[in-house]
Amino acid sequence: MEAGKLLIRNASQIATCSGFAAKKGKAMSDMGIIEDGAVAVSDGRIIRVGATQDVLSCLNEEEYTVLDARGKALLPGFVDSHTHFVFGGYREEEFAWRLRGDSYMSIMERGGGIVNTMQATRESAYSDLYKSGYARLTDMMKMGVTTVEGKSGYGLDLETELTQLRVMKELNEKHPVDVVATFLGAHAIPPEYKGRADDYIGYIIETVLPAVAKEKLAGFCDVFCEKGVFSVEQSRRLLRAAQALGMKPKLHADEMAASGGAALAVELNAVSADHLLQVSTEGIGLLAGSNTVATLLPLTAFSLREDYARGRDMIDAGCAVALATDLNPGSCFSGSIPLLIALACIYMKLTPEEAVTALTINGAASAGRADTIGSIDAGKEADMIVLRYPSYTYLPYHTGMNIVETIIKKGKIYRSY
Amino acid sequence: MEAGKLLIRNASQIATCSGFAAKKGKAMSDMGIIEDGAVAVSDGRIIRVGATQDVLSCLNEEEYTVLDARGKALLPGFVDSHTHFVFGGYREEEFAWRLRGDSYMSIMERGGGIVNTMQATRESAYSDLYKSGYARLTDMMKMGVTTVEGKSGYGLDLETELTQLRVMKELNEKHPVDVVATFLGAHAIPPEYKGRADDYIGYIIETVLPAVAKEKLAGFCDVFCEKGVFSVEQSRRLLRAAQALGMKPKLHADEMAASGGAALAVELNAVSADHLLQVSTEGIGLLAGSNTVATLLPLTAFSLREDYARGRDMIDAGCAVALATDLNPGSCFSGSIPLLIALACIYMKLTPEEAVTALTINGAASAGRADTIGSIDAGKEADMIVLRYPSYTYLPYHTGMNIVETIIKKGKIYRSY
Repeated sequence: MEAGKLLIRNASQIATCSGFAAKKGKAMSDMGIIEDGAVAVSDGRIIRVGATQDVLSCLNEEEYTVLDARGKALLPGFVDSHTHFVFGGYREEEFAWRLRGDSYMSIMERGGGIVNTMQATRESAYSDLYKSGYARLTDMMKMGVTTVEGKSGYGLDLETELTQLRVMKELNEKHPVDVVATFLGAHAIPPEYKGRADDYIGYIIETVLPAVAKEKLAGFCDVFCEKGVFSVEQSRRLLRAAQALGMKPKLHADEMAASGGAALAVELNAVSADHLLQVSTEGIGLLAGSNTVATLLPLTAFSLREDYARGRDMIDAGCAVALATDLNPGSCFSGSIPLLIALACIYMKLTPEEAVTALTINGAASAGRADTIGSIDAGKEADMIVLRYPSYTYLPYHTGMNIVETIIKKGKIYRSY
Repeated sequence: MEAGKLLIRNASQIATCSGFAAKKGKAMSDMGIIEDGAVAVSDGRIIRVGATQDVLSCLNEEEYTVLDARGKALLPGFVDSHTHFVFGGYREEEFAWRLRGDSYMSIMERGGGIVNTMQATRESAYSDLYKSGYARLTDMMKMGVTTVEGKSGYGLDLETELTQLRVMKELNEKHPVDVVATFLGAHAIPPEYKGRADDYIGYIIETVLPAVAKEKLAGFCDVFCEKGVFSVEQSRRLLRAAQALGMKPKLHADEMAASGGAALAVELNAVSADHLLQVSTEGIGLLAGSNTVATLLPLTAFSLREDYARGRDMIDAGCAVALATDLNPGSCFSGSIPLLIALACIYMKLTPEEAVTALTINGAASAGRADTIGSIDAGKEADMIVLRYPSYTYLPYHTGMNIVETIIKKGKIYRSY
């Protein structure tokens, strides 16, 4: 048995999710199923995938640590491609206010909303942000997540935005889960710039963005493009500046109103357009004709009692749809992958196959990583999960329950139960 | 330090849920909060509850195993008062058919429904039912459940109904979680009695019920009182026979149509009337004037895309409302307490306080145990949970996520994380 060599054999089913990526002409429902399958891993990478007998015939089993997956399904690790998991403070009081029907405006007047978390994050020590972020990554990993995208955007000033991103950089190095960092300085208008959104965008472009780029803290730049927050013009200005510094664009688009966010995403060849609750049919058509992933966040709609995004229509139109949690301390303090899958299948009419694709290879595409993770293919990183049950169909069926038994991250084995 | 003595101190909050029971005139929203609280336990029972300073002044701390709960909330263990957790086989295929919109009738024609599970349960070995039941209890315990009601009803014949109940009896003895057994021989009409519901009720009354009573396998008798299943008259006949043998009545009532189930429950002074999706306003009024607990099962409505029961109206009318999972392999393969709480608070308009009451003291009442469990009171069994957060308000706020860190069952400590 050699170090770094792992053989998973006799999985009742491997859902490879191979070869879809976020490209048109690939059906999200075609999962590349292998029955009685095996995967060989060496040095953290997948080297062979196939029927157990075929894989065994090509290697010397005695060199491998063997994981018997009889009666269990093997899937790619989940990629949660839209979160705000590094933050200070909690807003449980605001949640209770919202439950009893208090208006958004009255909650804002009492100091609720993003600015509440901004204040708490500015006041947090680096070590506290790191510690709580680490614990949240562990919670997500137990549910099968092996890569998490995380956004800044609770600093809204130079120092704290950099702190959030540095926390994510260290978490990426020290926690088994990989962290993909996105700069979201344009998450909201901070009190210092109240009524001066243009000036704030200018500050971000001139002061914060160059500092983020210089430290290589984020591969992506995101913006809350929404009526009453940042306009299409302001968003374009910021994202073009980010592109000039080598950051790829992502957008919070068409969440509360059809504001032209999807069209801007396509215009800029953004990696993803996210939320899309109110996207127009025209916007869906534009996304379908583009390389931009439509990243849907049904846990937020669930938490806010809103209608879900038109995921079924988007898939039927040919969009590459990803699903992500949107984990954040305000609108959606949930990282529940089981609930996300249940909402997608029961309430958004995605098939179980499409939901798995949306959380694996399409999630990877939404995080800009489709070439290295998101499917069980030779050459990719060995990020996989073993379910307690023989098929991926148990994911929505065992509704809201975590059925991930074992997590394999870069070839290392972690137990969830 | 003496064996069997446990002191939990400095809990940021104790929600005692004391003294509500299922009685009128008690507000479900009044939780009996103690800040910076402590609980002393001896021989599996609570002996003292109060502010930490007060409790410490009455005992010698050195005699106790001490659990410091600083920054954490302490609640009674959850009581899941309506489940079907002992069964053979799975129906994941049927779930997928339902997702894609197949009709109930077409699913029945392909062997779906309760009869599918009946067949698989009849074919299961006792040891397999025990083993899978044990694992399900452990899953529930991790989410803070310390007592589970479980129903038979997947045998629909003498032998298998007794087997299911014997499995629950052994689980009650061997698993830390307590199991309250309910006989539900009248769960459906088995193929042998197709079109002869009266004859089947006669068989249950004459053959199965006496055997259950003789072995003392169930304290409760339940019946699926519903249009097209068992009529009010058939249900009354069965439940009166059960009462004569010392079993207390429970009812599956008014789930698919207003069938008079709630009225029958009140007439028979049933412990609980369950489901109640279609209960009439008159039925709500009858329940409010009775000792019968209205036990609501929103995970089932969620799984089936149905409207939720009118929990808000019931509480406002004065009903004692309990919440339970309905965990079963068909309509609701979910035991998710976090999702149940989220549905109750976000979609049924219960307050967080009412949801906790519904899962603790009112759940205990629905399982006929309000005198011994369900609240943190001196004299009661020491069934409690410690949350990872300082308040019960985080239960709905951390939506769909398990935040139970420690489970105390009869004074013994179990860790969830």
